[in-house]
Amino acid sequence: MRELGRHFVFEMFGCDRKALNDLRAIEDAMEKGAVDAGATVVGKVFHKFAPQGVTGVVIIAESHLSIHTWPELGYAAVDVFTCNTATDPMKAYDRIADLLKPKSSSIMELKRGLLTEGKD
Amino acid sequence: MRELGRHFVFEMFGCDRKALNDLRAIEDAMEKGAVDAGATVVGKVFHKFAPQGVTGVVIIAESHLSIHTWPELGYAAVDVFTCNTATDPMKAYDRIADLLKPKSSSIMELKRGLLTEGKD
Repeated sequence: MRELGRHFVFEMFGCDRKALNDLRAIEDAMEKGAVDAGATVVGKVFHKFAPQGVTGVVIIAESHLSIHTWPELGYAAVDVFTCNTATDPMKAYDRIADLLKPKSSSIMELKRGLLTEGKD
Repeated sequence: MRELGRHFVFEMFGCDRKALNDLRAIEDAMEKGAVDAGATVVGKVFHKFAPQGVTGVVIIAESHLSIHTWPELGYAAVDVFTCNTATDPMKAYDRIADLLKPKSSSIMELKRGLLTEGKD
């Protein structure tokens, strides 16, 4: 039984609060992170909230990367969902963590699309 | 200890294969699903793959909704991430399921941003 997609759920705490509110830098890190991971970018959408916070998604041929930031709390929720085993989501993590500099983080991997009906 | 965001992970199996490949209908259901859930849409990006499959994200003031479809396998991976307790992710599920008609599905809720350092 093989999954169709690997979904990495990153929790980043104690991040650089200024970086968490920098739309342009986050957009750049997310897009470069996708490329670093070996993915192909096919679209993106980002938004900066008032008074603070950034939300954004890069869609890739292999699924998506998303980020939501809470600058006032030093927290970012980052997801990397990829359906190609050749990609390396940790490369995207490294690029984003290099910008946000979390003091602590957690990583969880979800296997998405585990088919049981006659699929191997 | 309260989470900053609730992240619903939906796995939909045995979906209508034609609907899984209908970019316009999926985009419409995702956007309306966000509104049904009580969210505010601030952006979106969708992509149709050759020969098949649709990927897309709606970003909302409360985080995001994403979908990735595998028409050839009848499967869709749908996520609804919201940081406002007033929203109801199941309303988005209902709208999307109404289009895709999964024969079976699973739902998992992740609590995102559980802060322990002096936060309640």
